[in-house]
Amino acid sequence: MIVVMKSSASARETGAVLQQIESLGFKPHISSGEERTVIGIIGSDRKVEPAAFDGLAGVERVIPILKPYKLASREFKQEDTVVEVRGRRIGGRQVTVMAGPCAVEDRAQVREAAKRVKAAGATILRGGAFKPRTSPYAFQGLGKPGLEILREAADENDMAVVTEVLSVQDIPAVMEYADILQIGARNMQNFNLLEEVGKAGKPVLLKRGMMSTIEELLLSAEYILSKGNYNVILCERGIRTFEKYTRNTYDISCVPVVKKLSHLPIVCDPSHAAGDRDLVGPLAKAAIAAGADGLIIEVHPKPEVAKCDGAQSLHPDQFDTLMKEVSAIARCVGRSI
Amino acid sequence: MIVVMKSSASARETGAVLQQIESLGFKPHISSGEERTVIGIIGSDRKVEPAAFDGLAGVERVIPILKPYKLASREFKQEDTVVEVRGRRIGGRQVTVMAGPCAVEDRAQVREAAKRVKAAGATILRGGAFKPRTSPYAFQGLGKPGLEILREAADENDMAVVTEVLSVQDIPAVMEYADILQIGARNMQNFNLLEEVGKAGKPVLLKRGMMSTIEELLLSAEYILSKGNYNVILCERGIRTFEKYTRNTYDISCVPVVKKLSHLPIVCDPSHAAGDRDLVGPLAKAAIAAGADGLIIEVHPKPEVAKCDGAQSLHPDQFDTLMKEVSAIARCVGRSI
Amino acid sequence: MIVVMKSSASARETGAVLQQIESLGFKPHISSGEERTVIGIIGSDRKVEPAAFDGLAGVERVIPILKPYKLASREFKQEDTVVEVRGRRIGGRQVTVMAGPCAVEDRAQVREAAKRVKAAGATILRGGAFKPRTSPYAFQGLGKPGLEILREAADENDMAVVTEVLSVQDIPAVMEYADILQIGARNMQNFNLLEEVGKAGKPVLLKRGMMSTIEELLLSAEYILSKGNYNVILCERGIRTFEKYTRNTYDISCVPVVKKLSHLPIVCDPSHAAGDRDLVGPLAKAAIAAGADGLIIEVHPKPEVAKCDGAQSLHPDQFDTLMKEVSAIARCVGRSI
Amino acid sequence: MIVVMKSSASARETGAVLQQIESLGFKPHISSGEERTVIGIIGSDRKVEPAAFDGLAGVERVIPILKPYKLASREFKQEDTVVEVRGRRIGGRQVTVMAGPCAVEDRAQVREAAKRVKAAGATILRGGAFKPRTSPYAFQGLGKPGLEILREAADENDMAVVTEVLSVQDIPAVMEYADILQIGARNMQNFNLLEEVGKAGKPVLLKRGMMSTIEELLLSAEYILSKGNYNVILCERGIRTFEKYTRNTYDISCVPVVKKLSHLPIVCDPSHAAGDRDLVGPLAKAAIAAGADGLIIEVHPKPEVAKCDGAQSLHPDQFDTLMKEVSAIARCVGRSI
Repeated sequence: MIVVMKSSASARETGAVLQQIESLGFKPHISSGEERTVIGIIGSDRKVEPAAFDGLAGVERVIPILKPYKLASREFKQEDTVVEVRGRRIGGRQVTVMAGPCAVEDRAQVREAAKRVKAAGATILRGGAFKPRTSPYAFQGLGKPGLEILREAADENDMAVVTEVLSVQDIPAVMEYADILQIGARNMQNFNLLEEVGKAGKPVLLKRGMMSTIEELLLSAEYILSKGNYNVILCERGIRTFEKYTRNTYDISCVPVVKKLSHLPIVCDPSHAAGDRDLVGPLAKAAIAAGADGLIIEVHPKPEVAKCDGAQSLHPDQFDTLMKEVSAIARCVGRSI
Repeated sequence: MIVVMKSSASARETGAVLQQIESLGFKPHISSGEERTVIGIIGSDRKVEPAAFDGLAGVERVIPILKPYKLASREFKQEDTVVEVRGRRIGGRQVTVMAGPCAVEDRAQVREAAKRVKAAGATILRGGAFKPRTSPYAFQGLGKPGLEILREAADENDMAVVTEVLSVQDIPAVMEYADILQIGARNMQNFNLLEEVGKAGKPVLLKRGMMSTIEELLLSAEYILSKGNYNVILCERGIRTFEKYTRNTYDISCVPVVKKLSHLPIVCDPSHAAGDRDLVGPLAKAAIAAGADGLIIEVHPKPEVAKCDGAQSLHPDQFDTLMKEVSAIARCVGRSI
Repeated sequence: MIVVMKSSASARETGAVLQQIESLGFKPHISSGEERTVIGIIGSDRKVEPAAFDGLAGVERVIPILKPYKLASREFKQEDTVVEVRGRRIGGRQVTVMAGPCAVEDRAQVREAAKRVKAAGATILRGGAFKPRTSPYAFQGLGKPGLEILREAADENDMAVVTEVLSVQDIPAVMEYADILQIGARNMQNFNLLEEVGKAGKPVLLKRGMMSTIEELLLSAEYILSKGNYNVILCERGIRTFEKYTRNTYDISCVPVVKKLSHLPIVCDPSHAAGDRDLVGPLAKAAIAAGADGLIIEVHPKPEVAKCDGAQSLHPDQFDTLMKEVSAIARCVGRSI
Repeated sequence: MIVVMKSSASARETGAVLQQIESLGFKPHISSGEERTVIGIIGSDRKVEPAAFDGLAGVERVIPILKPYKLASREFKQEDTVVEVRGRRIGGRQVTVMAGPCAVEDRAQVREAAKRVKAAGATILRGGAFKPRTSPYAFQGLGKPGLEILREAADENDMAVVTEVLSVQDIPAVMEYADILQIGARNMQNFNLLEEVGKAGKPVLLKRGMMSTIEELLLSAEYILSKGNYNVILCERGIRTFEKYTRNTYDISCVPVVKKLSHLPIVCDPSHAAGDRDLVGPLAKAAIAAGADGLIIEVHPKPEVAKCDGAQSLHPDQFDTLMKEVSAIARCVGRSI
């Protein structure tokens, strides 16, 4: 059960609701967003009567939600969430394409990538400055200088920046340079990091863990939402299975399932799923046909010398072609890039 | 290594090639198709010199193929295979839709289903007369009377029939009534059955096992091809993973991977993958966007009373809508239904 | 619900029970074993009152079983099933070891293997004459001559024979030479083959499919039991997962889960699970510690020249050592080899 | 390649080695432990000649290691690592049992649990004060007061404490009260946290991620080792698969595989793998039979009222019985509790 307070509700009115919840033997969970406060009633949902809040001032709605995630659910919000980033909209009728290199290597590489993907129609520049690497001996990213390079290249091309934040201590630096904070697959259940990006306030791109269920993805989003940050974009990037030909198994069903269960936008990352640039095009088109709100794609000016993930990075020319094909599919399903 | 004989090659010429292979210390594997004979050289591929067959009469080509599947590989045949069934083509520019109920229940059900799916654009009628059931106590299908009902409904609507053959002893009956013999996921590695449908000669729809790799799917196709039957249509229908929301995880990557590795056509079955009719539309569109050659979809006149798989069967009205959407996507990728 | 008839029940008494089931609106499923007839009531279990059979002659017991498998369940039979093979017992206090080469290659190999594994304490000789191979070009086994070699080597060493039957047409040959018919992992859901080995009557070793749940394993056993053959031995041999170091993931939990749900004996096959002989010992000991009723282990006189699975086959000397260790573990858990 | 410096090596000698590595075109990676410094040579291992370091003072050994993990590998250290905690040894001939409740709920619960598990033979008390929960609304643990309760109960019973650290900011508090810092499965690839517990210096219990390969587990250990902390205990606790009966699939093969590849001790957690107390005993015995160095088991004075994981927690009486059985198995494999 969720109690949504009016945006005009006073602290005293909110306090009365909290008291009422506790007097009924439950625990309140407060999410204070910019516009309004939402109070979850924790405990056994089934036993609370919405009528118990009827007489209380400042209460806008009481919504019974049986799903384990509350604020992320369609029951809580019927209409699709549209996330605004530097005047661009992610979700709704829009199909958004984020593109750029896996890792920021140097200024020339990122500028070239940004120029080319922007020209092709991408509006958000991606690139890793802090890289999560399985081995401590692999290239770990340029760190803060990488963030500066990203910001500069994005500004030159009027793009927004999405980049991964790996730990709580890096949040301030990433907040300074990026427009969207990415939580990588390996950190999808790093709950402390989720809470902190929830508090930080900028939009969050939350990648599904390689072995996480869709329900767990929505519960991880709930960690961010419950800190008052409603601008969460989900991302399907492949799950682990026995199949060895692809790097991960691209779970395209995640798109319509998320659309059914949640109001949050969802984008797909065919590059990390496939691990092979020959597959990126078909998988990108499939995502849009299935209803995804966008794509995040690795493009490198010279994939053959990339410091990471070269095999799955598109050449800029290939990306040009893909954008035309994806636009056509988008129109087919009533949307536009 | 594969030695392709000319269609005009005599038995003596073929014999000389076999002798040469054995004298080199290898084992020949003969596939006699309707048009020509192909001889695989079994053993360590790397050591045979194609030149060893230069002087032999009747030899058309010698092709080195390192993949474990030979006849199913792109190396063996560059151009896409197009399977012809009753004047219809599966593969090439064509997108083919197979539709109908999960199980044949009675004449009225199948006639109604056939009429509706044909009107919407499907050309091949699907339906199970022999049902593979996890439990010995579940409905096992009508058997031969079910085949008669399918044939009759297909004939009334000028459609072809695809239906599953569960065991070698059922092949003659299915050959009599069906145009395409389906091998179900649970039988993908029933090698004896594969060999027998290879010999039977009619086109085969080979479903990927729920825990089979793409390479294993191609090797199972190879069992059929190596008996001289080149009319094999592959089918992706979902694999088993930890994700519980969907019945199986629809491995859309299988489509571009198969297109890269093999010349055989591939269709997708979103119904069995999803297990939920709300997901069938998005997954069907994704398949065509990713390059699939067709779809196989469960449609039931009254899904709510279906004897099996009702939850994933489309209402005929839903199928009408889906066909329009799928046609639009097909045009987008340069194909037509 | 299951109605167990007395062993003395007449055909007329059985007929009356069938009539009663149908008059209640259900479908009876008859399993006629050597000793008694058991009648399953198919349909919604919950609605039948056991009292409905109170007055009927020949009825021994009426057992409500909600699980989808009936005859395989602990509810149907409380005490552990002990399968007797040539005077040896599989199940109960006994720990049984089956050992031998992956494939029968020639007489000398099998005789040497049999002599060595018998001396070390194995009582059942394993070896494949019909081999299920992923590729049509791989060694497919010696067929019937292989069966003769197995029988001869077993007889010389007073052992029983377990060997795989790949298709219905091979059942008569395997029945002639073997004591236990093995159903391989790829055929666990080849329902036609399950029914036919159910009718054939000899004990069956049923391997769990690489993609199959424990519940599905028990349902496949049910196919055999429901044909009146109660001598089924289950076998865990590893399932498919994302982990690549081992060939399959040895699901040791299958042992205590099967013991909880079913009365059937279960053995483990660490060789196929591991794919690496260094792991076979630890996994074999783990199986017995977890409560398994036996082991099936690949032993080859010269693993380095084995035609298949050499890397996972033990040298006879290694098997000697393993048997001593396994015997000690068996005593620890109150059992003996 | 790894260069191991003598314990007496001076900073100048170490500097000369670093210079030599760089002059050869590689990047050095320094791990300064308490006793000695180890320098990894990062880049393409194959090209460095060990002889390049022959003349340099202070160099003890040069070891070529091709595996991606270096310090965690058997090549780096032949003999088993034994971790010492308050005078107890984990690894070697010893089998160590860690036991206690899933979550610290209150003082009485933990004291009772500690008294009982110590009496039965456990030497390390487990219990969660900071709980990683899939849902933000689930009980998140008592935090620091929970740590105090754990320490007190452990001291009363002369036990060591192992407890989970969820985030970098909690490290100081956990360092104050615990003897072993546990990294949970969801944080196995939280690389920042790994590095920080590496620097913190106390022994670390590193749980395998539900989605992680054994190689990735060793690479995560490498993150800790490469910060100079060699006291890492690995833990198998089940991986995600399609099987639904158990909460996770207990990958018992992880034990002998780790023993083959690494010198680090490994313990097993049958409670979290099984999710069902009836399975804990068989799985615990299997672990010791397979060569595990210990167990971590959930025991709750009253499992039926546990705040989390009650279904998988043993009653103290069940734990008494289990310890006797486990001790017998340990003796069988030449070890003792």
